[in-house]
Amino acid sequence: MNTVGLVAFALVGATKAIREEFDLFGVTVVGLATAFAGGMTRDLLVNRIPLALSTPTEIALGLLGVGLAVGVSATLESADTHPVTQFSDAIGLAAFTTTGAIVATQAGIPAFGVVAIATINAAGGGAVADILLDRSPFILLDDFYASCAVLGGSAYWMIVAVGGANGTAAAVCAAMVVGTRIAALIYGWSLPTAQVLGLTRE
Amino acid sequence: MNTVGLVAFALVGATKAIREEFDLFGVTVVGLATAFAGGMTRDLLVNRIPLALSTPTEIALGLLGVGLAVGVSATLESADTHPVTQFSDAIGLAAFTTTGAIVATQAGIPAFGVVAIATINAAGGGAVADILLDRSPFILLDDFYASCAVLGGSAYWMIVAVGGANGTAAAVCAAMVVGTRIAALIYGWSLPTAQVLGLTRE
Amino acid sequence: MNTVGLVAFALVGATKAIREEFDLFGVTVVGLATAFAGGMTRDLLVNRIPLALSTPTEIALGLLGVGLAVGVSATLESADTHPVTQFSDAIGLAAFTTTGAIVATQAGIPAFGVVAIATINAAGGGAVADILLDRSPFILLDDFYASCAVLGGSAYWMIVAVGGANGTAAAVCAAMVVGTRIAALIYGWSLPTAQVLGLTRE
Repeated sequence: MNTVGLVAFALVGATKAIREEFDLFGVTVVGLATAFAGGMTRDLLVNRIPLALSTPTEIALGLLGVGLAVGVSATLESADTHPVTQFSDAIGLAAFTTTGAIVATQAGIPAFGVVAIATINAAGGGAVADILLDRSPFILLDDFYASCAVLGGSAYWMIVAVGGANGTAAAVCAAMVVGTRIAALIYGWSLPTAQVLGLTRE
Repeated sequence: MNTVGLVAFALVGATKAIREEFDLFGVTVVGLATAFAGGMTRDLLVNRIPLALSTPTEIALGLLGVGLAVGVSATLESADTHPVTQFSDAIGLAAFTTTGAIVATQAGIPAFGVVAIATINAAGGGAVADILLDRSPFILLDDFYASCAVLGGSAYWMIVAVGGANGTAAAVCAAMVVGTRIAALIYGWSLPTAQVLGLTRE
Repeated sequence: MNTVGLVAFALVGATKAIREEFDLFGVTVVGLATAFAGGMTRDLLVNRIPLALSTPTEIALGLLGVGLAVGVSATLESADTHPVTQFSDAIGLAAFTTTGAIVATQAGIPAFGVVAIATINAAGGGAVADILLDRSPFILLDDFYASCAVLGGSAYWMIVAVGGANGTAAAVCAAMVVGTRIAALIYGWSLPTAQVLGLTRE
């Protein structure tokens, strides 16, 4: 799952950078940032050396995603919204949420921190990529994306809190992220703004 | 003071995000980032695990600020510039500057670093929030805001340097930040740009 | 070399902030961020306390660069593209790339990580400054700038990998960065975008 996720995340990020006419160095950086910035931020927050930089296989997978983005940009206008990409991206979201929850739990971080680190691990890469592209992180604006990671991370924490096995918690977390993300794509879920809820003064 | 500051900072950040029509997840993230990103950056810089993620009380205070922002957005157009908010924000600025100066001094960091970490602790959260909102951090552009933290942090360092007690240094630091910030609000202080100073070629 | 680099980087960053009409606090922060953010990010990634905040000499050099930027903004419209500045900037790029490669190698980080950390050390400050100025980091868009750091970092790693002395590797790395950067300035090198390569569908 991690493998699919790294390739999909790098592909999505690199495709956005190609659309903004970044040069090939920029496309590579944005692609790799999408794939690795979430996990690296997680490592900084639990005070360990970011592992991504030391793992040739993971780097190779990220570069494969960037290469795919450049390759298919000749034939597909928006490789990042292709169903195969979106499905792979959902799998990556699930893999990264679960990894984040496991690492945070091992580091002895309590409830809210586990959910926060799982969400940052999963959605932080996309947020960093959007900042590099000079826009607000899309996860804050609309769509039902980071919310899937929040749900999955919460499920992980609750199962561990009631004495469940780590393996069970990981499986439920991953399933919940993939399930809610795919449902969100199919049914067009999004979180409301305060405006939509009628909570602001006109 | 820290309590008031966390609520006020989260309220200010969340109000900005509501105005930009972020969804409720985005409003929560920007609110919590405003309250916690300064302290977390400080923790990263002195190489310890960010404590905010492990402190349920602090998280609850941040969420309270977010809730207040959503709640009052129906009745107040700009809750973030209401006098009560601005006064609470000044208290938070003072509390966070003082905490930053204390932590940096304990970590054995010399003069400039103490002032820098105190300022980052106090003003870093607002800067991160502005980047998430896709604008330049307001503290760099105008207003007399981070400057109060610079003055307070400098006062703390000087008092400790001449042999003063930590408690005295903390009290003077906090008083100086609150005092200069409120004076800045009342008298409309701002730092000049190079243009205003006539230092640029037309 | 490091000395020249710190002054030049701070000068370039502060000049950009003056042009955007930031106030004097903002100009100072952007100048210091350009000079120090790359090295501080490197320190975070290899998990040590950022040294810049503890080194009065380096801070003084950064502030000298900021002062120069303010001083010459009255006589030069664009101090940051003056040949003297660009040459000093190339020397700084080389110094920071080499420092990054040495620190990463000492921290036991393998191939890709050495090149990545050398590049972040050299080009990260400018990228952070651009984000503070609310634009995409220029290194991702055009120009042949970070690419020089990638080439230098790769040379360092290859020489160490085949058993060369650290001193030799550092000298070759620095020479390659200065050489390629100056050639890029003279001949107007830039990396292509996917659009230029004809890889996108019209």
